[in-house]
Amino acid sequence: MKGMVLDAKWEPKADYTVSDWEKKTGKAITGNAIWHNPTLEVKEWPDPKPGPKEVLLEIQACGVCGSDMHFYETDDDNYILYPGLTKFPTILGHEFSGKVAEVGKEVTLLQPGDMVTVEEMIWCGRCIPCRNGYPNHCTNLEEIGFTIPGAFANYIAVDEKFCWKIDAIAERVGSEEKAFELAALTEPTCVAYNAMFERAGGFRPGHFVNVVGAGPIGLAAIALAKAGGASIIAAFEVSPQRRELAKAVGADFVYDPMEVSAGEVLMELSKGEGFDFHVEAAGVPHLVIPEM
Amino acid sequence: MKGMVLDAKWEPKADYTVSDWEKKTGKAITGNAIWHNPTLEVKEWPDPKPGPKEVLLEIQACGVCGSDMHFYETDDDNYILYPGLTKFPTILGHEFSGKVAEVGKEVTLLQPGDMVTVEEMIWCGRCIPCRNGYPNHCTNLEEIGFTIPGAFANYIAVDEKFCWKIDAIAERVGSEEKAFELAALTEPTCVAYNAMFERAGGFRPGHFVNVVGAGPIGLAAIALAKAGGASIIAAFEVSPQRRELAKAVGADFVYDPMEVSAGEVLMELSKGEGFDFHVEAAGVPHLVIPEM
Amino acid sequence: MKGMVLDAKWEPKADYTVSDWEKKTGKAITGNAIWHNPTLEVKEWPDPKPGPKEVLLEIQACGVCGSDMHFYETDDDNYILYPGLTKFPTILGHEFSGKVAEVGKEVTLLQPGDMVTVEEMIWCGRCIPCRNGYPNHCTNLEEIGFTIPGAFANYIAVDEKFCWKIDAIAERVGSEEKAFELAALTEPTCVAYNAMFERAGGFRPGHFVNVVGAGPIGLAAIALAKAGGASIIAAFEVSPQRRELAKAVGADFVYDPMEVSAGEVLMELSKGEGFDFHVEAAGVPHLVIPEM
Amino acid sequence: MKGMVLDAKWEPKADYTVSDWEKKTGKAITGNAIWHNPTLEVKEWPDPKPGPKEVLLEIQACGVCGSDMHFYETDDDNYILYPGLTKFPTILGHEFSGKVAEVGKEVTLLQPGDMVTVEEMIWCGRCIPCRNGYPNHCTNLEEIGFTIPGAFANYIAVDEKFCWKIDAIAERVGSEEKAFELAALTEPTCVAYNAMFERAGGFRPGHFVNVVGAGPIGLAAIALAKAGGASIIAAFEVSPQRRELAKAVGADFVYDPMEVSAGEVLMELSKGEGFDFHVEAAGVPHLVIPEM
Repeated sequence: MKGMVLDAKWEPKADYTVSDWEKKTGKAITGNAIWHNPTLEVKEWPDPKPGPKEVLLEIQACGVCGSDMHFYETDDDNYILYPGLTKFPTILGHEFSGKVAEVGKEVTLLQPGDMVTVEEMIWCGRCIPCRNGYPNHCTNLEEIGFTIPGAFANYIAVDEKFCWKIDAIAERVGSEEKAFELAALTEPTCVAYNAMFERAGGFRPGHFVNVVGAGPIGLAAIALAKAGGASIIAAFEVSPQRRELAKAVGADFVYDPMEVSAGEVLMELSKGEGFDFHVEAAGVPHLVIPEM
Repeated sequence: MKGMVLDAKWEPKADYTVSDWEKKTGKAITGNAIWHNPTLEVKEWPDPKPGPKEVLLEIQACGVCGSDMHFYETDDDNYILYPGLTKFPTILGHEFSGKVAEVGKEVTLLQPGDMVTVEEMIWCGRCIPCRNGYPNHCTNLEEIGFTIPGAFANYIAVDEKFCWKIDAIAERVGSEEKAFELAALTEPTCVAYNAMFERAGGFRPGHFVNVVGAGPIGLAAIALAKAGGASIIAAFEVSPQRRELAKAVGADFVYDPMEVSAGEVLMELSKGEGFDFHVEAAGVPHLVIPEM
Repeated sequence: MKGMVLDAKWEPKADYTVSDWEKKTGKAITGNAIWHNPTLEVKEWPDPKPGPKEVLLEIQACGVCGSDMHFYETDDDNYILYPGLTKFPTILGHEFSGKVAEVGKEVTLLQPGDMVTVEEMIWCGRCIPCRNGYPNHCTNLEEIGFTIPGAFANYIAVDEKFCWKIDAIAERVGSEEKAFELAALTEPTCVAYNAMFERAGGFRPGHFVNVVGAGPIGLAAIALAKAGGASIIAAFEVSPQRRELAKAVGADFVYDPMEVSAGEVLMELSKGEGFDFHVEAAGVPHLVIPEM
Repeated sequence: MKGMVLDAKWEPKADYTVSDWEKKTGKAITGNAIWHNPTLEVKEWPDPKPGPKEVLLEIQACGVCGSDMHFYETDDDNYILYPGLTKFPTILGHEFSGKVAEVGKEVTLLQPGDMVTVEEMIWCGRCIPCRNGYPNHCTNLEEIGFTIPGAFANYIAVDEKFCWKIDAIAERVGSEEKAFELAALTEPTCVAYNAMFERAGGFRPGHFVNVVGAGPIGLAAIALAKAGGASIIAAFEVSPQRRELAKAVGADFVYDPMEVSAGEVLMELSKGEGFDFHVEAAGVPHLVIPEM
């Protein structure tokens, strides 16, 4: 099949100490200290074959993440920008949906034709963090499109335990195509969902919600706050296009943080009571959190 | 002024031991063991005058609670049905809104013309439960329309600390009259809100929510679940009229619990996954909770 | 090897409908409606051999659970008393600890000689409840000593993911033997821990804690409340011996609920403020919870 | 009576804009921008007389807070160091205990001879933050020893609602004097308690707890973690004396953060699993939190 493949050279920077684990696994913990001269091209890749517990998915939709950009973009020395866990070459793409084309012989929950979206984090379910309920801290973590082949391709094979059926979305929107597109947004949306409802906790219907930054995660936060019954949603974003999107997905008030004082605006909107819930999605917590 | 006054005779049932506290305060802890031969009529009542920290409200809307019915309805021996804290005679009515007509001289947050709704529980803010954050367990509790004069009248005087401005509702619905009516629903709605979001905790947008009983509290629970982003709301209610109301305020599926097995229905609706959040609003927890 | 084997006849009661799932799996969902004429004896059982991800444990200590009693005790028609998931014949025993004797070739976290205790619930980690963080609701659940061979035997083979190392306990108590005994209490203690700290939530150091019932779970609750900084622990228990144990593990006050009014006692102990946290461990929630 | 009085000149720095509220109330929001040339001396102060809801306390013990130091210490221009809400002259001292000497005529919960400790924050109980359960965000806040007379004196008069009886402490330690000293530690201890158990949430018996900074708040955090059942407590502190105190109140391991890498130490202590709960009590969150 064809896949969009990112390749780069394993050439650790002079001041970076490659760990034994990195040497053994070929995975870089700090990608931008190791991967040099990246190339990105559509090329032939072996057809994936599902193992006994895996399903083969025909990819239907796949989003482009900021991480995808940072694999290809480079610093002055032509090292990739992405600072995290990576192993190349691999096919990129980790925000996706697909249709089950084939099932392994031990698969029990899915069958050909099923529509699914897939977790990006391939957690083992056996290490201590996994057992403790923190699969995203898995000590054996692989990441689709980062360390193992992703979804900018015709097909992907994944363990069925990472698949979530999206039939209910299709029923609701009345279109398979639309459902596949929406489902491809699950991964970035979950970043905001997990932060807002699981880890931060305390969200209440009726809250005044402040979202700083309206990139993909911030936009998801706005839509989730709306879905969760926020009374007022204010968003701060420097890009005019993103400010328009923020409004479209549910922000009641949108500002350019370069032109207003966020603190004053929020106190005014809340008639002096202050906002109940704040989301930092601008990637500059050292600036945003103290003001919150 | 005029008020709708409930009066009854203090005639403890033979098998009920009146406590010293009840004797001293004239308040019945177990109303239906003491209050005999209730009468309900509109009559003259002294005009309330606001104390230094109180506001005088011109009543605009007041709901009729099941408790109000149980003050007047009686058992075979003509004792009232309501089993709780009561002191008669008093004006009934505790789900209400009003307009500030006059303010005491130490009032700082309200002014004449302000639109408000009012808490029903008159908590002292000084006893240990109040200080611990449980004003509804106040050891000095008075209840508007139960132990002190209520809102089926022209006016009421209340400490400003129990008043909540409803200007934002009026702005949103564009009508003072409509805002006063909606605001009168605050008290029963808060019964469900407190149970669902404060005490039970764990509600999440996307949840499948089951509400058993679609009286005022159950209907509020349905509307709140909808506002809070429930994905599916199922309701069980024996009254056909209330089933219609349940649909109108947001239930996706409504059933007569006499005609279906709730457990089976919920498993079917959730394709075998079960429901995430259950609300008992039928007043029969001993039947409902085990099934949940 | 030798094992203590419970066997019984699959003879469903006349009024019990055996489900297709029960027929297919040979597992009874409602044990006491199916299993007839139980026998319990020590006999030969095939030596377990660890699979690739399994370890072979030499059993060191194993507790006797109330469930173990209810497998053998019978009603008037000689059906077992235990009402839950069961498949016989099997070796009983599910509260245990052991020493790793052998490891499968894919085992990575354990090695021969390691001291461990083991979860009783064998969760798949792949079904929807497991993925949602509720492994105890696993749809593919097996239970050691209930549906698969348990620990009243010389050896057991279990997936390493269910094993938890107890070296820290041994270090603290300074004795392997004592550590194995303590570790065998992990399973019943976790019943109380999960209820108190995970599902109920809200426990605070300094709380006044009421534990009703001082069987193994109630005793664990008392010890956990003590460990967690309870200020006062009151326990109610009908058995004099268990009342002694309750004191020994940390209860400050212990009563026979047949001789005192729990409500009055708690109000007195708390000088009228009431208790903060209540544990129902008597197995009679319909009596205990309303009084709480 | 005598009191230790802090006085200073209201001389706002050139670049500080005094707000209307500051002018009207005489309270500085940013103390170190206004109060100049502080003096501290024991002098005569009018005897306090309890109002109707107040009690007169004879002070028994009072701690010295870092804030007390910062009222007297100055910058190069001789402005006080303390940056918060202040109104001078006033008597300092806000971590204290006392014995009720006299009660106002509406006091119901206390009587002469009662032993109490007192909240430092004098919250109104009427503003929106107070009603919402956040008295420490009270919009009418006064602070004992900051804006109103404190406890470095013979007597203080306070509303009974801020008093908490300490009889139980006296019973436990068997000495009134010791109880008064312990009770004077309530205020700083609550800073840690509120942070750890109320706001952060998620503390569990058995946790591995890391406390950074072992000043009064950090020491309280260590003691509270110990009381709450922490399994291992590690503390990092630059002062050798405070490291000794950290051990004395319950820390299992204590380090000088200048000499070790906290991250490495914690990973080693936890055999690679990491610590569960972290407390920043060093006053340098911008350094400590990222490492956590």
